[in-house]
Amino acid sequence: MICVLSGGTGGAKFVDGLRQVMPAEEITLVVNTGDDLLWWGLYVSPDIDSITYVLSGMLSRERGWGVKGDTFLCLQAMGQLGEPTWFHTGDRDLAMHLLRSRLLAEGKTLLEATEVISQKLGVRARVLPMSNSRVETRIQTPNVGELSFEEYFVQRWYQDPVSSVRFAGASDAEPAPGVIDAITSADAVIIAPSNPVTSIGPILAVPSIREALVRAQGKIAAVSPIVGNAPVAGPAGILMQAQGLPCSIAGVAQAYEDFLDILICDTRDARTAETVRKTGLRVQCAQTIMRSADDKAALAREVLNCARPNMTDAARSRSDAEANSFRRLGRQP
Amino acid sequence: MICVLSGGTGGAKFVDGLRQVMPAEEITLVVNTGDDLLWWGLYVSPDIDSITYVLSGMLSRERGWGVKGDTFLCLQAMGQLGEPTWFHTGDRDLAMHLLRSRLLAEGKTLLEATEVISQKLGVRARVLPMSNSRVETRIQTPNVGELSFEEYFVQRWYQDPVSSVRFAGASDAEPAPGVIDAITSADAVIIAPSNPVTSIGPILAVPSIREALVRAQGKIAAVSPIVGNAPVAGPAGILMQAQGLPCSIAGVAQAYEDFLDILICDTRDARTAETVRKTGLRVQCAQTIMRSADDKAALAREVLNCARPNMTDAARSRSDAEANSFRRLGRQP
Repeated sequence: MICVLSGGTGGAKFVDGLRQVMPAEEITLVVNTGDDLLWWGLYVSPDIDSITYVLSGMLSRERGWGVKGDTFLCLQAMGQLGEPTWFHTGDRDLAMHLLRSRLLAEGKTLLEATEVISQKLGVRARVLPMSNSRVETRIQTPNVGELSFEEYFVQRWYQDPVSSVRFAGASDAEPAPGVIDAITSADAVIIAPSNPVTSIGPILAVPSIREALVRAQGKIAAVSPIVGNAPVAGPAGILMQAQGLPCSIAGVAQAYEDFLDILICDTRDARTAETVRKTGLRVQCAQTIMRSADDKAALAREVLNCARPNMTDAARSRSDAEANSFRRLGRQP
Repeated sequence: MICVLSGGTGGAKFVDGLRQVMPAEEITLVVNTGDDLLWWGLYVSPDIDSITYVLSGMLSRERGWGVKGDTFLCLQAMGQLGEPTWFHTGDRDLAMHLLRSRLLAEGKTLLEATEVISQKLGVRARVLPMSNSRVETRIQTPNVGELSFEEYFVQRWYQDPVSSVRFAGASDAEPAPGVIDAITSADAVIIAPSNPVTSIGPILAVPSIREALVRAQGKIAAVSPIVGNAPVAGPAGILMQAQGLPCSIAGVAQAYEDFLDILICDTRDARTAETVRKTGLRVQCAQTIMRSADDKAALAREVLNCARPNMTDAARSRSDAEANSFRRLGRQP
């Protein structure tokens, strides 16, 4: 079993590769819910959605979020009704939010709702929200005050200077059932190439998750979302600096320093890697920019090879054979 | 001021004509909410929707319900998630249900939510739900037990024999604010060519509405939805018989006998009209089948001429001039 801690963008791309190279049943995802929002009265969980869509083959790879081939007529009609339209929910995508909202209204937890949806969409990996409680990533800006993550990121295009980030509700939250066990008992834990502050940060802010990582039995590997002192996408750089972390693979290593065993960074960071190695951390260089399905599979394979060093060759080849049989069955990348 | 009691199908067609021949500001609609349903967790009010769409020029005239040019991708996606899909909500149409549901969740009444939506869509007629309370039309069938109206009508295509109809919650309901005054003070009250049992019946079942019709100062005219012993559309015939009313213009007259002044029936029913006139009711024959915009306008004009007999020629010609100026301003039929 592999446990992956993930946000929704870089994380979804990484998971798209992972599902090519190992059986989905052997993957448990612990997913950030700090970005969750009430939108048009519906409960939207952007990172759970992206992970669910990528695992069910529905993700729009062009946009990196939402459902492929989706249309936006309801959004347009909401605009005509004077409702906000800055958060783009497609017409097909709305079904996810409608169903989840109804399940929550009926008293199901976020985990239970996620399980129902996973099952309906044929997702065979286990998708766990980091918590059933509401934890909200709040971005402090000197100019416009405090923003929700989606306001900062989607509505305002992450143009505001950021003074700090906090996770409202985190101290009272509990990990969702299964999260701690998934982390501590996994053969390897992989931190996806997600924003360390606002994608992985909220997960680590839930009490006892960080401790579980410290005592996990498997190796813990993180894929750096920073390449050459800049984030591959999004506001990770600004947010890391706001939290006192350098925007570099050294900053990523620092964010996870109490539990990280292996940092996987891009080959372009080979020189910085040398410096980071001096702290005693194992650093592996790989091609981390994922443009094609092959890029994604190659990175996933590389990360698994680093993180599961104790796996016997026999077990690994069995696992590879299973993955190949999935591909033959049509679950293509 | 004219007050119109209406359902959503024949009623919407009639209102489509009425808005051509008089200023919308002078129309108050009291609309059936007995068909309202929770669908995918959203509050849907099918007749309010149709009336709102026709008044805002958004109604699909081809289907007679929903928004013109709408698509159904969310519906398709809900089907993939294993959710019911028999009630067809289009992608644009969803915006209406999302906004109304949010307003209700925020504590607004159905009337207040309807007013907000009317205002956003530029509807200048006054649209009143019959009541802010939930009144549910329940169809008793000998074969499959009790059904909601939408289950009977949309899900099961009104194929079931019907033993009776009841309006759950009606005895505890109150008319929405404005309803009684709209009826009693109108220059004329028009009962649209809607199903007397399940479109007008729920309105009449709300305590004090029937009494208001009895003491209304204006004339009360009903347009028969029955032509030649058959309903123009839908299950009115079956439902009238289940309620002990003949499926004929005489049955329509009987449904409204305690308050009706004028029955407008189709020219094809001229002979039956003679019989009904013997009961002392005024019966006017007209072309009631509305195929074109001109048919609708002609019927509306005919009904207004019957129902507002005391209106001075000067007032009527002012009203007609205003209606013409609306048409010139582009509010076309």
